[in-house]
Amino acid sequence: MNAQDLNKKKAAEFAAQYIEEGMTVGLGTGSTVAFFLDALAEKKINFTGVTTSNRTAARGAELGMKIVDVDEVDHIDVTVDGADEVDTYLNGIKGGGAALLMEKIVAKNSTKNIWIVDQSKVKPVLGTFPLPVEVVPYGSGQLARKFEKDGLNPTLRLDQEGKTLVTDGGHYILDLHLDGMDSPERLSDYLSKEVGVVDHGLFLNTADIVIVGGDEIEVKERKH
Amino acid sequence: MNAQDLNKKKAAEFAAQYIEEGMTVGLGTGSTVAFFLDALAEKKINFTGVTTSNRTAARGAELGMKIVDVDEVDHIDVTVDGADEVDTYLNGIKGGGAALLMEKIVAKNSTKNIWIVDQSKVKPVLGTFPLPVEVVPYGSGQLARKFEKDGLNPTLRLDQEGKTLVTDGGHYILDLHLDGMDSPERLSDYLSKEVGVVDHGLFLNTADIVIVGGDEIEVKERKH
Repeated sequence: MNAQDLNKKKAAEFAAQYIEEGMTVGLGTGSTVAFFLDALAEKKINFTGVTTSNRTAARGAELGMKIVDVDEVDHIDVTVDGADEVDTYLNGIKGGGAALLMEKIVAKNSTKNIWIVDQSKVKPVLGTFPLPVEVVPYGSGQLARKFEKDGLNPTLRLDQEGKTLVTDGGHYILDLHLDGMDSPERLSDYLSKEVGVVDHGLFLNTADIVIVGGDEIEVKERKH
Repeated sequence: MNAQDLNKKKAAEFAAQYIEEGMTVGLGTGSTVAFFLDALAEKKINFTGVTTSNRTAARGAELGMKIVDVDEVDHIDVTVDGADEVDTYLNGIKGGGAALLMEKIVAKNSTKNIWIVDQSKVKPVLGTFPLPVEVVPYGSGQLARKFEKDGLNPTLRLDQEGKTLVTDGGHYILDLHLDGMDSPERLSDYLSKEVGVVDHGLFLNTADIVIVGGDEIEVKERKH
């Protein structure tokens, strides 16, 4: 296992201690969450898992977990998810794994959100990682042109076969290559109001706790 | 033909005169637009139609029209569409026909927007007609619960067989029973930012011209 994976695994294993018998737990998506699912399976406790992607639902079922949809529970105690970038305010960019929409819906419905990342994901300013924007297929070409005009450098995300990637929700993803951003809040507002945008990868005021795996484990908590 | 249909037909036929040879024309959806498609077919001119629904695409093709998607044109000269309600500022509610998302995408990409309505659609204040909100299926139950708490009286729209209606974009519709609204702008902002909302039926600052069919034809123009 390389150093980055080791750091992901450390953060994931640390997060597993937040999960208690009988909880309803939101399960994120991605390579760091994969380590978390393994750590959770080893705890051998009973809990209900709420999925954020077809991928996570399938992996959870393989591990013998009870996996349900967000509409089948009346609340979620805690959600554990990864992030592609986290800034000093614990805001982040997510969506490298194309699951941002379901992830945001589950996060929104969670009492507590914990992110697990390796130390390479912590940045002073968001926007080195391309910002994913989930868009309605109809008119996505016109929208990409508008983003281009507005200086947001969009590229349409392709799958491994080079075809347009379709999300679990049936949408496309435009990745914005920004090289930093002045105001995540302003960009989030702009994107939310844009016709054809379903949602975007800026997760602001979402994470309550960020667990960073490095030589040591660092636990950052949101100040309210 | 009843009086209301006659008024729809009058507005539709009047609108046809705005369409000229060679134009790219956005074609709305609904019963008033159906009259417009007939009137347009009778003009026997060449134009390119941009569709806002599978239904309109099918009907246009039947009438021998050239129908394309919004991403196949570089601009739309004029779009003609119906509305479920229009207020004195020429803002409106659309989406009774469940095509609001594609309608809004086409409207947004149009140089000029013309709405055709019968006089029963003109209201001093929007919100007697239920406001459609197009939502992501995943988490739509939680979202309905939130709207309920916020006093917006949502109901999940069903199709004619009593099953959950699925839009052309693969989403659900929550109809908000509001009985008027204080500020369409504020409600539009609130809805746009809500996670899981794809778009909504408030079309603000969209119509440039509203053609109202009644005993006489009334043409209202947006003041800039």
